[in-house]
Amino acid sequence: MSEGITVLTGGVGGAKLVLGLMQVAAPDDISAIVNTGDDFRHLGLAISPDIDTLLYTLSGKANAAQGWGREGESWSFMDALKSLGGEDWFLLGDGDMALHVLRTHLLARGETLSAVTGRFAAAWGLGLSVLPMSDDPVGTHVITDSGELAFQSYFVEQRCAPAVRAIRFDGAEQAKPAPGVIEAIASPSARAIVIAPSNPWLSVDPILAVPGVREALAAASAPVVAVSPIVGGKAVKGPTAKLMNELGLQINNRTIAAHYAGIIDGLIVDGRDGGEGIDIPHELTDTLMVSLDDRARVARAALALADRIAAGR
Amino acid sequence: MSEGITVLTGGVGGAKLVLGLMQVAAPDDISAIVNTGDDFRHLGLAISPDIDTLLYTLSGKANAAQGWGREGESWSFMDALKSLGGEDWFLLGDGDMALHVLRTHLLARGETLSAVTGRFAAAWGLGLSVLPMSDDPVGTHVITDSGELAFQSYFVEQRCAPAVRAIRFDGAEQAKPAPGVIEAIASPSARAIVIAPSNPWLSVDPILAVPGVREALAAASAPVVAVSPIVGGKAVKGPTAKLMNELGLQINNRTIAAHYAGIIDGLIVDGRDGGEGIDIPHELTDTLMVSLDDRARVARAALALADRIAAGR
Repeated sequence: MSEGITVLTGGVGGAKLVLGLMQVAAPDDISAIVNTGDDFRHLGLAISPDIDTLLYTLSGKANAAQGWGREGESWSFMDALKSLGGEDWFLLGDGDMALHVLRTHLLARGETLSAVTGRFAAAWGLGLSVLPMSDDPVGTHVITDSGELAFQSYFVEQRCAPAVRAIRFDGAEQAKPAPGVIEAIASPSARAIVIAPSNPWLSVDPILAVPGVREALAAASAPVVAVSPIVGGKAVKGPTAKLMNELGLQINNRTIAAHYAGIIDGLIVDGRDGGEGIDIPHELTDTLMVSLDDRARVARAALALADRIAAGR
Repeated sequence: MSEGITVLTGGVGGAKLVLGLMQVAAPDDISAIVNTGDDFRHLGLAISPDIDTLLYTLSGKANAAQGWGREGESWSFMDALKSLGGEDWFLLGDGDMALHVLRTHLLARGETLSAVTGRFAAAWGLGLSVLPMSDDPVGTHVITDSGELAFQSYFVEQRCAPAVRAIRFDGAEQAKPAPGVIEAIASPSARAIVIAPSNPWLSVDPILAVPGVREALAAASAPVVAVSPIVGGKAVKGPTAKLMNELGLQINNRTIAAHYAGIIDGLIVDGRDGGEGIDIPHELTDTLMVSLDDRARVARAALALADRIAAGR
């Protein structure tokens, strides 16, 4: 039986599903392709928020209550930085700094982001393959009523307040998929390709914007299944609902299915929403991932749907 | 009366004297010219150990017991760095990282080390001028029985264990004094130029190796007074005595006076050692600086000797 599982993911929500997949499949069968459109340079440091969230979540270091950063983090660096008049709108925890400083150093020495990410995942014994979508810089920019903003300015500094009119992925056209990305999607031994319930417009679209990724998904021999970020007629995370409204989109699973049309073969939807109007294979489950059991349940549902689709081919 | 006081200093010992000078003179009359021969890049960060020690000491943030770094420092960064397999022979405290990260960032944006240092001193309200000896890189290298070592490798990684045969200052010949350095030494309104009791070979010689500094000291209108690092026939700090032995030098004040011959007009020596054999103006005092009062006493003695020399001209 085919065992390879490839998951496309952003930060927090996606990391929950990847953690669920780690409970129900062997970690070394899993490849996570991670959004790097949020990556940016801050104080000269190379910061990869979604990769870091995944590394922290999978290694049990994440601050789950806060939704970002490390559990038990200390803040001496920020305090000292403020005392020196440094920019303080982006919070960098003391332990968190290790990822940024070491990554920046290794990139400056000529290592690729994939190599650095693989090194970190291995150092923390994670087992799975953590693959940045690209080793080339791709920057998510948000065109808002207050002008164009780089992602972190919009998301962190402005707390998603400006109304979004459009989104673009700077550098995507020139970017190449990182080593292993296309291979993980196109692998003839793949069992399933899962799109995590990350924000489709801000976290998954950057991955799809890397040339070759969309085509590989459309041509994949393994079923491609998305887990919808809609739960009970709302987006789980506030900014997703706000963004969908601003883009004039209805907040329901038809919108999600339409967004991924041509790519996905199936959709996992929340039981509260039902499958009405969804004309592709789908399964209902409770998709709200609070506990580790929740994460495993959603992962199992996604794999079961993929297996059902594969069996019907 | 002339009020300007210029002090040439390395790290810990020198910083104590500068703090003493701050007690007995107006901070804005004081210029500290600081050794940058110990500066190095570590994990891509621009680290200036002597400047940092001075900034911490003068702002009351120094860990006096430890002799380096910040009081009440936390170590989450190092813990996380080790978990990622990063180099861990040089300890970087969480709060300490702010100086290195912000300095690295500002230098990368094109600011000079003097501008960055001035910015930090101002942010912490220090009042005095803290001047790196040069904005150009000068690297102290130690030629030892185990080969040539960059200063931090010798001092921190190898804990001064290898026997030193010679010392060279890489890049010194091409370095220019930082803005304000020659002006502070040559100022016609200067009251005194003080050489702090830092290691003459490792901490003061790099400053003297910057073209123009030695000549400016020799030609200065203000008296130049050194505070000897010898106390009671020993060097206050172990590595200085070990180094002097390895260089075949007698550990006494005649060696210090000879080392600074042609530059200094007077020498402050410890009462335990006496002035025997010293053929330049000198004063005896207790030069061991344990308390803040000690630091002020040594500073007063240095200024008094300078005033006496000036009065006799």
